[in-house]
Amino acid sequence: MPALQNDTLIRALLRQPTAYTPVWLMRQAGRYLPEYNETRRRAGSFLALCKTPSLAAEVTLQPLERFPLDAAILFSDILTIPDAMGLGLYFAEGEGPRFERPLRDEGAVAKLAVPDPGESLRYVTDAIAEVRRALAGRVPLIGFSGSPYTLACYMVEGQASDDWRTVKVMLHQRPTLLHRVLETNARAVSALLNAQIEAGVDVVMIFDTWGGSLSAAAYREFSLEYIQRVLSQLKRGAARVPVIVFTKGGASWLEQIAATGCDCVGLDWSIDLGDARRRIGERAALQGNLDPSVLLASPEAVRREVQKVLESFGSGVGHVFNLGHGVPQFSPPENVAALVAAVHELSPKFH
Amino acid sequence: MPALQNDTLIRALLRQPTAYTPVWLMRQAGRYLPEYNETRRRAGSFLALCKTPSLAAEVTLQPLERFPLDAAILFSDILTIPDAMGLGLYFAEGEGPRFERPLRDEGAVAKLAVPDPGESLRYVTDAIAEVRRALAGRVPLIGFSGSPYTLACYMVEGQASDDWRTVKVMLHQRPTLLHRVLETNARAVSALLNAQIEAGVDVVMIFDTWGGSLSAAAYREFSLEYIQRVLSQLKRGAARVPVIVFTKGGASWLEQIAATGCDCVGLDWSIDLGDARRRIGERAALQGNLDPSVLLASPEAVRREVQKVLESFGSGVGHVFNLGHGVPQFSPPENVAALVAAVHELSPKFH
Repeated sequence: MPALQNDTLIRALLRQPTAYTPVWLMRQAGRYLPEYNETRRRAGSFLALCKTPSLAAEVTLQPLERFPLDAAILFSDILTIPDAMGLGLYFAEGEGPRFERPLRDEGAVAKLAVPDPGESLRYVTDAIAEVRRALAGRVPLIGFSGSPYTLACYMVEGQASDDWRTVKVMLHQRPTLLHRVLETNARAVSALLNAQIEAGVDVVMIFDTWGGSLSAAAYREFSLEYIQRVLSQLKRGAARVPVIVFTKGGASWLEQIAATGCDCVGLDWSIDLGDARRRIGERAALQGNLDPSVLLASPEAVRREVQKVLESFGSGVGHVFNLGHGVPQFSPPENVAALVAAVHELSPKFH
Repeated sequence: MPALQNDTLIRALLRQPTAYTPVWLMRQAGRYLPEYNETRRRAGSFLALCKTPSLAAEVTLQPLERFPLDAAILFSDILTIPDAMGLGLYFAEGEGPRFERPLRDEGAVAKLAVPDPGESLRYVTDAIAEVRRALAGRVPLIGFSGSPYTLACYMVEGQASDDWRTVKVMLHQRPTLLHRVLETNARAVSALLNAQIEAGVDVVMIFDTWGGSLSAAAYREFSLEYIQRVLSQLKRGAARVPVIVFTKGGASWLEQIAATGCDCVGLDWSIDLGDARRRIGERAALQGNLDPSVLLASPEAVRREVQKVLESFGSGVGHVFNLGHGVPQFSPPENVAALVAAVHELSPKFH
């Protein structure tokens, strides 16, 4: 494997000195890019795009052709795991993800098995191999998975929800049943991330998109505990692949997230980076946390807000620039260009 | 005016000793109650229900007939203010609130004026008078308003949104214009709350439902600053009507909210009450913070979770029991009964 030509992201994640603040964006490969929409059209569907390694690799690389990003992130979907478990993932047009067979009872939960990443998720590692070849060490490649709880949300609810009432009723009424789902999910997430690491990703990230919908006590018991298990089951290799954990809406629990032993805590935009830094200290790097909505405004507004985020972190090691959530669908690409340029131009004086 | 027979809520808000923890619930008058749905049917529409004092008073009192709650909260809607400003509030069936004439440009903002609560919002104070007569001092009556920023969200966006992109683009591109809206809103909110106080409410609450969608810096500038203004313009009278401020998603900013000089900080369920108490100390009482989803489970689950919330606050003064958000639409009333009973039975040992 070629050595990385740009290892700024890795160094920042490990809290080592860098010349500037590295930047990548959640959903940097996505619908705001016309070339993404074109590839997706060719694929026929979102799911086909995820499952066709050559096309997944193609869209993974698209934002890097436009913007001097400091990392690529594998194009995939967090719901590939429950899909490989046989729950029947489909996307109703304009409606988001759905499962044909959501987990609602003891029988369904008992049948749940950890998919073998070498079999039913082979398309993920095949895409990684293609991206690695094309990148040739230009920048690091990030692999990822949903958190066990976030996967369970979709698996039990059967679709996205604004209150996740079905999974929460299971949590209150049948906690043991939910724990069984979460144990299986934790093993499935570890297996997939280990397969990604083996296939050559340089960093892994756990997206806990819905952990923030829980109470503090339920978060510890049903989400953080299983993220911790995943971390303990990772085979991070001699190079010790860095791990980023991101709980959206998790501002109250940063210390606990850092205590999992992850290298970096992802932050949404609700928290001041300086406050987060004071709370976490040297225990972990921080990733974030620009409000994505600014990408819908102007390049000038983007530049102003980038400056504020850099200032709120301040000088020193351990900051990876990112949004607090994904790139919005209707972001003009020139605003994304302005973001990346602003981080590269304005950040050196903080190093 | 008759003295209050049950002043437990007032005493808890002022951090004075009480024999037990007082409890009321956001949206305690609402669609989970068959009698509410019956009155709403008679009213013809949600808006007619809000605007007909006798019917608004009727539904305000309904939950008190069923449950020994420690407060009534006026049945009304936060969008009555922008409606009185002439924006044309309507409710598309199953779609939530909409405005016919959202604020999108300089001209619309320039025309915005503070409604006279004695005129276009007279139905609010008339309903308060009716409720007061019916309550006859049994428990305190809570008045309320949306926060200036939360009102602006709906006024600019024209409807609810999952990312509030229109108002956020205005915030980034035309901050002066948004500030003008917020100044007007702050005066309108103060005027309405002062009219409510004059009409006899015992407590007022400011609902900042969408402040939590902002970044930390934007929250201070666009939401908290105007909540502060409202507080400074309140005529709280000799009895010093207590004020509750609730920013949903505001866990990162509790100290700043307490520093507004409010008497009580409302909390959503993401934060541990004990942590919040350590952060806020003696500066304010705390209101919250049971995850509302437990009301969809069983009376036994409700009782367990009530116990956990009481324990997380611990012993001492200054806790008002509530949910972290409104009562869910499909809550069985017996679960609400179990909640109120559990708070009254389990809380005395913490006092």
